[in-house]
Amino acid sequence: MKNFTIITTLALFLGATSFAFAGHHASGEHQDRKIKYVGYSQIGNPADVLEVKEESARALTSGEVRVKVLAAPINPSDVLQIAGKYGVDAVLPARPGSEGVGRVTEVSAEVKSLQVGQLVLLASGTTWAEELVGPAAGFLPLPNLGPIGADVIEQLAMSAVNPLTALLMLNSFADIKEGQWIAQSAANSAVGGYVIQLAKQRGIKTVNIVRREGLAEDLMAKGADVVLIDGPDLAAQIAKATDNASIMLALDPVGGDTFGRLADSIGYGGTLVTYGVLSGKPATLNTGKVIFNDTRLRGFWLYKWYQTATMQEKMAAFGQVIPLIANGTLKANVDSRFTVDQIKQAVTRAAQRGRNGKVLIVPSPL
Amino acid sequence: MKNFTIITTLALFLGATSFAFAGHHASGEHQDRKIKYVGYSQIGNPADVLEVKEESARALTSGEVRVKVLAAPINPSDVLQIAGKYGVDAVLPARPGSEGVGRVTEVSAEVKSLQVGQLVLLASGTTWAEELVGPAAGFLPLPNLGPIGADVIEQLAMSAVNPLTALLMLNSFADIKEGQWIAQSAANSAVGGYVIQLAKQRGIKTVNIVRREGLAEDLMAKGADVVLIDGPDLAAQIAKATDNASIMLALDPVGGDTFGRLADSIGYGGTLVTYGVLSGKPATLNTGKVIFNDTRLRGFWLYKWYQTATMQEKMAAFGQVIPLIANGTLKANVDSRFTVDQIKQAVTRAAQRGRNGKVLIVPSPL
Repeated sequence: MKNFTIITTLALFLGATSFAFAGHHASGEHQDRKIKYVGYSQIGNPADVLEVKEESARALTSGEVRVKVLAAPINPSDVLQIAGKYGVDAVLPARPGSEGVGRVTEVSAEVKSLQVGQLVLLASGTTWAEELVGPAAGFLPLPNLGPIGADVIEQLAMSAVNPLTALLMLNSFADIKEGQWIAQSAANSAVGGYVIQLAKQRGIKTVNIVRREGLAEDLMAKGADVVLIDGPDLAAQIAKATDNASIMLALDPVGGDTFGRLADSIGYGGTLVTYGVLSGKPATLNTGKVIFNDTRLRGFWLYKWYQTATMQEKMAAFGQVIPLIANGTLKANVDSRFTVDQIKQAVTRAAQRGRNGKVLIVPSPL
Repeated sequence: MKNFTIITTLALFLGATSFAFAGHHASGEHQDRKIKYVGYSQIGNPADVLEVKEESARALTSGEVRVKVLAAPINPSDVLQIAGKYGVDAVLPARPGSEGVGRVTEVSAEVKSLQVGQLVLLASGTTWAEELVGPAAGFLPLPNLGPIGADVIEQLAMSAVNPLTALLMLNSFADIKEGQWIAQSAANSAVGGYVIQLAKQRGIKTVNIVRREGLAEDLMAKGADVVLIDGPDLAAQIAKATDNASIMLALDPVGGDTFGRLADSIGYGGTLVTYGVLSGKPATLNTGKVIFNDTRLRGFWLYKWYQTATMQEKMAAFGQVIPLIANGTLKANVDSRFTVDQIKQAVTRAAQRGRNGKVLIVPSPL
């Protein structure tokens, strides 16, 4: 079994093709400017195989825009794909990075949808770089949010993967109403935090399961109703903490025994959604309980959603999360920031347990 | 984890209340006739706790009918409930038996829906007996099937549990079309045989998984397309045997590793339905595959269906299976027949591995 962790997406969310790699002859004013980016030519441990590369800036061709990368997160799915442990394999040589935020610095004459100075989401991948050049369709213009600080820019850099995962899992599998309970494991993950915040906003109560002490305060501050430490007695703990509420939705990126315990914890006809395998272990499952309790088990993979959702569905989903990120309702912790040059330190930090937040690539101070 | 086997139902399928037990004073012509039935006063191993009892025949009260029991099967769910390993507990003292067929021998004056001589399905349980007395609503009149032999009577005795389980699992979880493949484990079970026959009738192809040699001939005769022996390479075996067909429905009453192997064998977006735990073991599940493959896992419990289906849905389901049973399209193997007196031998035989068919209670020669 592949030993992967939280599964989200490497999707290019507007369905645009990846940017063409270097190889163009630089010309005119860009000729002497060098752009750093991260690349890899073989599958393996990210800290070993990732390289900092450099290419000359090139002039725009028709329909292209130039975007300065402001911030881009290291998501578990990025790391998994580099390590060859993801649901889709990278085509080598490859440039990693699945999302981020940038500012338009140049547009070719034909481009009407974007303007210099505009903030955009980086929708076509290869985001661990100082600058991107590509077709305008590969960038999603953000609405005018007024003057925003560095903290909001960082939060917007993380909007395409984890907040959408949280939103879609909350919306797609069960109709949870105000006052009802849901449960989730790895509640201190980025997705976990967004789930807490989105649930809180809807008046849905959350049972949040973590694997170590010391996390409750942060989660309660985010809006968690209950925080529990995972263990063999999890189902009993949940029943006690919720006064035997019928839990109709549980979300699990851990797998292994935790998956089985959550399956044992949910109410009649409830749904357990797996979206990752942080434990690296096969799940155990009491199928007798699945029968008698009409338990429904599903998987969620954002990558597939990006591949199959209509543009309308995508715009509707972004339309829900972007304003909440901009006004601070949806927020993920940031653990640390690294430049493109520091990519090996960045992925090493991202692989460490005990971290409490995302690792970001921030090419230059915001 | 409760150590149960194939889960079907103890449902009283018309939702009628159970027949009142003895305690009436017998009177008139029935006074001297003794009726044998099976009962139990404690939960335990069926061969230990089941007792053959006797009560005096009693006169009918208003709205009641008297039915001679012709045949009644021993289903795994019956045995599990007696052993205290089922999803609903028996109220003690109890009389076992969840289905069967009988012939009306007497009707009270008020009863218009049934006539003496009519064949009926025993819809209110307590069927391991020589004779039943109860409200007419507790018996489902069979359509006039013309002259039928003992073999068809035996088959009709098994119509309310296993054929409906097979039918409803085929109909409820996926829209499988002619020429497509499904897979199932424990294919030599009664439900397995009905699945093969119903699929064959619809032009659906079946991969049938068993746990020992020597069963293929019988299953091929029933209409199986492929018969495989379970093992760690099951997914590869299935892919090879079906030329990599995308299997959108798999049915599993085994659990344990078999459940996990079937989960690994099904196509993108396919559904695996658990309806029993013959292995007695928790299932193992690669949740990463569930995510990337959009696998859907569900449980099926006929008991709940009987509790929640409308009368129209029930009549529609019976309307599909009864004619197929009567004309021989749907047929289960019969292993052996025992009288009410021989109940201990009967349940002992029903518990033996290697048996190839149902054990029936046949109170007197058909």
